[in-house]
Amino acid sequence: MAQKQIMLNAFHMCTPSQSWSGMWTHAEDKGVNYTDLQYYVDLARLAERGLFDSIFFADSIGLMDKYGGDNSESLRAGAMAPMNDPTLAIPTMAYATEHIGFGVTANLTYEHPFVMARRFSTLDHLTKGRIGWNIVAGFVNSGARATGREAIRDHDERYDLAEDYMQVVYKYWEQSWDDDAVLRDRTRRIYADPTKVREVVHEGAHYRSRGVHMCEPSMQRTPVLYQAGTSTRGRSFAAQHAECVFLTGSTKPMIRNHVEDLRARAVAAGRAPDDIAVIAGSTVIVAPTDAQAQDRYEELRAHLDVRGSLVVFSALAGVDFSKFDPDEPIEYIRSNAAQSFMERMTLLANGRKWRVRDLTAFHQDSPTAGVFLVGSPATVADAMKSWVDETGIDGFNLYRTSEPSGLKAVVDLLVPELQSRGMFKTSYTQGSLRNKIFRRGDRLDATHPARRSAPAKAAE
Amino acid sequence: MAQKQIMLNAFHMCTPSQSWSGMWTHAEDKGVNYTDLQYYVDLARLAERGLFDSIFFADSIGLMDKYGGDNSESLRAGAMAPMNDPTLAIPTMAYATEHIGFGVTANLTYEHPFVMARRFSTLDHLTKGRIGWNIVAGFVNSGARATGREAIRDHDERYDLAEDYMQVVYKYWEQSWDDDAVLRDRTRRIYADPTKVREVVHEGAHYRSRGVHMCEPSMQRTPVLYQAGTSTRGRSFAAQHAECVFLTGSTKPMIRNHVEDLRARAVAAGRAPDDIAVIAGSTVIVAPTDAQAQDRYEELRAHLDVRGSLVVFSALAGVDFSKFDPDEPIEYIRSNAAQSFMERMTLLANGRKWRVRDLTAFHQDSPTAGVFLVGSPATVADAMKSWVDETGIDGFNLYRTSEPSGLKAVVDLLVPELQSRGMFKTSYTQGSLRNKIFRRGDRLDATHPARRSAPAKAAE
Repeated sequence: MAQKQIMLNAFHMCTPSQSWSGMWTHAEDKGVNYTDLQYYVDLARLAERGLFDSIFFADSIGLMDKYGGDNSESLRAGAMAPMNDPTLAIPTMAYATEHIGFGVTANLTYEHPFVMARRFSTLDHLTKGRIGWNIVAGFVNSGARATGREAIRDHDERYDLAEDYMQVVYKYWEQSWDDDAVLRDRTRRIYADPTKVREVVHEGAHYRSRGVHMCEPSMQRTPVLYQAGTSTRGRSFAAQHAECVFLTGSTKPMIRNHVEDLRARAVAAGRAPDDIAVIAGSTVIVAPTDAQAQDRYEELRAHLDVRGSLVVFSALAGVDFSKFDPDEPIEYIRSNAAQSFMERMTLLANGRKWRVRDLTAFHQDSPTAGVFLVGSPATVADAMKSWVDETGIDGFNLYRTSEPSGLKAVVDLLVPELQSRGMFKTSYTQGSLRNKIFRRGDRLDATHPARRSAPAKAAE
Repeated sequence: MAQKQIMLNAFHMCTPSQSWSGMWTHAEDKGVNYTDLQYYVDLARLAERGLFDSIFFADSIGLMDKYGGDNSESLRAGAMAPMNDPTLAIPTMAYATEHIGFGVTANLTYEHPFVMARRFSTLDHLTKGRIGWNIVAGFVNSGARATGREAIRDHDERYDLAEDYMQVVYKYWEQSWDDDAVLRDRTRRIYADPTKVREVVHEGAHYRSRGVHMCEPSMQRTPVLYQAGTSTRGRSFAAQHAECVFLTGSTKPMIRNHVEDLRARAVAAGRAPDDIAVIAGSTVIVAPTDAQAQDRYEELRAHLDVRGSLVVFSALAGVDFSKFDPDEPIEYIRSNAAQSFMERMTLLANGRKWRVRDLTAFHQDSPTAGVFLVGSPATVADAMKSWVDETGIDGFNLYRTSEPSGLKAVVDLLVPELQSRGMFKTSYTQGSLRNKIFRRGDRLDATHPARRSAPAKAAE
């Protein structure tokens, strides 16, 4: 069997520092330039030089305020705060590059599907088919309060909403315009043939919509669909809808179980196991030698902002870690807000006697550091191969550490090593982001639910 | 008194053709490239070469379907259909230029003010203070139906909503972060001083919001505020909030009355008369000689799509012109949907015996062609001077005809003529779009209501 080629994605966010809190304080770090388009252009060009598949943008509506009950530590540490809208930086990154794709998180709670469908069609046009959508449905309470609700919706209710939402956007993307609707016939003065443009009619439990999609078909029509749900309901949603799943885990059994579960659910949903590319969050610190990589790791850890990290973990877990003794074992912390995240942490902690303070330390098997790889190009490539072989993942989403130096080391040192082993592509595939990932064309597979839903009513 | 310098703006939209329907059928027209970022970059560079103040993007949620009761003619003619989201093209245009500003229409009906505030702060960051917001509050029924409502809200209710909405966005833009909140202190590890970031609390009739603005202060904080309301309520809203007003009229008395009324209302609202820059929609067709300009005009008219034009006028007027005899006089057509537009047309038609067919003809005094100027650079410059002197307007918003050739003629022929007369700048002012227009700094004046509202509650 030929060596499986892995996917590499750069995990980013429009904020001074991200997964690794406090990295903006590193002298070489450029994170404080997150408001400047040149920052994003440089990032995209660097990642494209390394033949990365995509830059994957996290996002959230509302700053994190679980830790200590307000935004103070988040603002002080620059811990995912401030946070700008990522969609607006993407077209310029696409303009400055040719191949790399862009996954962007957009929360369906805050915008009607008709408007969201238009936004992503425009993005797909402007990026020439290189856009992906990471579907999320509500996360932080601060976003709910800022938009006039007392609190976020119940977890299952959010997924009910999301299911209905997807039916609407699918209809606009896939059914409203026929492939041959756009004629641009200057002589007969026909831009589009109206008989080939259909009115969408949707009467769902949560959403009603009736109209024609405002955008003509883009290269991919439906953006590449990313999802990162970990709960049972989230996995079920991902198995139905997602083409790429981003998961987090720090042990091989945990990730293997998740991957197997996802692929089984996909099959149950009428899709093929490899219709979903699974990408694991990963910390990669690479340097010419193992010793140099360890030095780099220690250097980064010296810049780690402990309270800033707890701000992020508090928001993820729905637990205010400011209230706990740093030495308290985490298996005894109970969360009602984000069960799945805490279940996962408890699973990890099982037998390992994790304490609250351990949450702040990025290291091997740390619940938040993901697949943790520190070493020379050969060491990291060996490890990546074992993770891929033993868990069934398709690639890695590289956490931002101190940038651009972290990413630059991956591009200059790790990528050539992976290429020399046949584990990584040596050139981009042509076409859309979807075709680059799956090599089966620019459009969604016929087995995807977006293609299987009932056709829209023919226009008058 | 020194010669008043005029403003020039290019009126655009992410659609194949716009005010002049059918121009995409012209052999030289590039409108069909509206999905390509290069189209927007070329447009921005051309307009910046001509020292234009801004490119002003119209937009609408929902395609036009009043004419004939569906989208057929709109789609067939490419008459503002399809129509992509304009906000996503703007950062790239800013990246490719240094000075030119960008006004963009965004409808407040479809997005919570907390999210809108973040979107515009991000745009202000990415454009380095060159963004303006054209505030609109609902227009086409198709957008309402597509987002689950039976019809658009009542006209006055929309303005009640807009008033409340503005209070929320002002609080986020102007009050949430102190000017000195952001420290980026790497040594002390303080990104922002939390004691200088305030929580916004808003409990209005339509909107509730409680939170910290997600974005640190941008150069302008509040984007330059554009408005285009023509009704009494719309003028009152503009007098309160707008810094630039875009109006349409084809006779000097009509525009002069509107300008005087607006400035009087601004004074009544506690602002100065020249706190508002008034920009008139204008068709400019310029060529080396008057005769060549007339030839060009006839050439463009030959490409005009008559039914496509009626699609647009039907939507503006709320009247289905497909139901009328082309020779019916328009003073007898009554509209319930868009009183102000029809009142304006009736006023224009008064004594002139306009027929429905006249609506489709762009010409002198046509109600939809705005200030209509065809001729040599000297002829057009003379006319512009008389319009400015006799009506009190500050500049012109140039309707897209066939592009880029129409804009290129203005840049290469008209701009030098205006400059030689001292009527137009010979270089850009430094700083933000606001400073370029008013030369009084990057921030809103202290007399603007955004600066006068009660301060936000101090953060804990």
